[in-house]
Amino acid sequence: MTTHKLLLLPGDGIGLETMTEVERIIAFFNAQGGGHSFETESDLVGGAAYDAHGVAVTDACVATAKAADAVIFGAVGGPKWADAPYAQRPEAGLLRLRKDLDLFANLRPAICYPALADASSLKRELVEGLDIMIVRELTGGVYFGEPKEIVTLEDGGKRAVDTQLYTTREIARIAKVAFDLARKRGNKVHSAEKHNVMKTGVLWKEVVTETHKTYAPDVELHHILADNCAMQLVRNPKQFDVIVTDNLFGDVLSDEAAMATGSLGMLPSASLGAADEKTGKRMALYEPVHGSAPDIAGKGLANPIATIASFGMALRYSCGMSEQADLIDNAIAGVLADGLRTGDIMQPGMTEVGTSEMGAAIVKKL
Amino acid sequence: MTTHKLLLLPGDGIGLETMTEVERIIAFFNAQGGGHSFETESDLVGGAAYDAHGVAVTDACVATAKAADAVIFGAVGGPKWADAPYAQRPEAGLLRLRKDLDLFANLRPAICYPALADASSLKRELVEGLDIMIVRELTGGVYFGEPKEIVTLEDGGKRAVDTQLYTTREIARIAKVAFDLARKRGNKVHSAEKHNVMKTGVLWKEVVTETHKTYAPDVELHHILADNCAMQLVRNPKQFDVIVTDNLFGDVLSDEAAMATGSLGMLPSASLGAADEKTGKRMALYEPVHGSAPDIAGKGLANPIATIASFGMALRYSCGMSEQADLIDNAIAGVLADGLRTGDIMQPGMTEVGTSEMGAAIVKKL
Ligand SMILES: CC(C)[C@H](C(=O)O)[C@@H](O)C(=O)O
Ligand SMILES: CC(C)[C@H](C(=O)O)[C@@H](O)C(=O)O
Repeated sequence: MTTHKLLLLPGDGIGLETMTEVERIIAFFNAQGGGHSFETESDLVGGAAYDAHGVAVTDACVATAKAADAVIFGAVGGPKWADAPYAQRPEAGLLRLRKDLDLFANLRPAICYPALADASSLKRELVEGLDIMIVRELTGGVYFGEPKEIVTLEDGGKRAVDTQLYTTREIARIAKVAFDLARKRGNKVHSAEKHNVMKTGVLWKEVVTETHKTYAPDVELHHILADNCAMQLVRNPKQFDVIVTDNLFGDVLSDEAAMATGSLGMLPSASLGAADEKTGKRMALYEPVHGSAPDIAGKGLANPIATIASFGMALRYSCGMSEQADLIDNAIAGVLADGLRTGDIMQPGMTEVGTSEMGAAIVKKL
Repeated sequence: MTTHKLLLLPGDGIGLETMTEVERIIAFFNAQGGGHSFETESDLVGGAAYDAHGVAVTDACVATAKAADAVIFGAVGGPKWADAPYAQRPEAGLLRLRKDLDLFANLRPAICYPALADASSLKRELVEGLDIMIVRELTGGVYFGEPKEIVTLEDGGKRAVDTQLYTTREIARIAKVAFDLARKRGNKVHSAEKHNVMKTGVLWKEVVTETHKTYAPDVELHHILADNCAMQLVRNPKQFDVIVTDNLFGDVLSDEAAMATGSLGMLPSASLGAADEKTGKRMALYEPVHGSAPDIAGKGLANPIATIASFGMALRYSCGMSEQADLIDNAIAGVLADGLRTGDIMQPGMTEVGTSEMGAAIVKKL
């Protein structure tokens, strides 16, 4: 019997509700037995942690996260904490976890669930069968570079600075993740940057080109300007297989791509650290692409699928349980085929359900 | 008789061909008389200037641009100059003009020409009647902040840095442009930044909020995170009237929005400086949103409408000729209604024409 240690961090807003459905699935697997079991611990993060402890994540929580096999994360933030000091704002909890666990590789699949092709803003033929993997660098760039500050000037005005910073090592390791993934998929990588304007873009392009050498000729590499990439994701998203990009462009492009699929409330993500040289183990955090949706929080209306699918990714990447991960993916496809829909993906002729009904239906399919 | 001094900078690729059509229109207005005349001068910029002078723009050209009533710009760049040194790459010419003329306000209309609503990737009902104005800060941010460099590290690797920098003054002046424009339009401004991650975002939000006070309550202000804005431009672009954002987000979001309209080859832009306190005159550069399109350059296939519409914006904003600007806009709408299309916007049942046929047809409608 292998025991997997999970840290559940529901966070704020709908994160609380969607995590409850993940717990239901964990209970199901634990009851089933079958060679694997889960030990879970929960903690506060984001606004909830700020309210309780005055910080968006505690040192103890970070330590538990490091020791866990996987962290399952809900969502953070909400209007209640709009005036929290910058260093204690809800997002700071998530950013600290990413940085302290060195989760440099953020994998964001943008897939179009066939049952939802009509829910996309894009024409059906442009998104049907869409399956992109966005590989976003997550611990560098303008998110963490120093100086990062606001100073008051002599004229009474202020000057704010953020620093976009990348090293060869940081770029090479994320490029490897992208090329390795492409090998298991469509063998094509687009690397998005602004080398025509940014020195980090120049280095990015250079290092990705260099890293590509050991993957050529079987993996194709295309360089694309980030602005053009934003265009092409609307014009013809199916031209992409894997997109690798920096932290800030990845933030914007992955949200755009997720929306284009029509499946935003459905999309999971994985944030992975480097594999330990001896044990092969890597720290990891799994979270839905969507946010805390304060407008519908607490009403039992949230779509739990993205968080459940994130748990599925944890099974696949952190627990060696790809069979069970497939079960989850199939169960999700199954309930959609049965016509069940939460409000966010409701379509004419379908059956509208709430968070817990959706979760229960998925468990039933397992 | 008012004489307007224009500097024409066709640049590279299709810029050469589309500028020829602008010259045709200038000749038409000059022949017509009617209180206004144009004096034009042309110069090299981008790759063409690099080939001739070893720099992407000469000091003399910058001086002429400063003295002109308006600069009409084509496009720069192409594979031929992919290996030009960073400081001399074609884009450097454009960036220097923006900076040296202090063209801080980049106005990028994203409108859907009714005749082209079906050409959009987005569903027709989402783009029909779409009319957004993106106001992009153009002389600050990560484009120009120092340090901007690549240094070699002790381990032989490299470290690249770009600096995202904004001051109260820079943000306040672009916010004013956005609010003033909103007053003449739909009275709604969305300000896009990442205040949850960037200190420049924190200051941006603060200064825009402060600047808004003199425009409230008639102009609505909404703060939106840039990643969410990228989503919403796909989900429901018609919710936007004016979007104000920084240089880098503006680059990405305006390309995305332009593509969503289905009218990419059609969209002009204006880059404006501050009005002189005494004369009210402001330096200005007008350019199409599209690039130099090396793949179709020199073939007579390019769509000249975006460059012609940019000239139309010059008439409106720099020459006090809004009547003639309306004439141009109507002529463009007219040829589209007649079914004329260049290859980029070709649709079933329409008549495919080349660059010069399109230009000639527009002149005929004037
Ligand atoms: C919540 C926020 C800090 C975060 C980010 O900007 O990375 C979010 O937008 C995301 O994409 O995970
Ligand atoms: C050509 C390039 C330097 C430019 C930019 O990044 O600003 C272009 O993409 C634009 O949007 O005008």
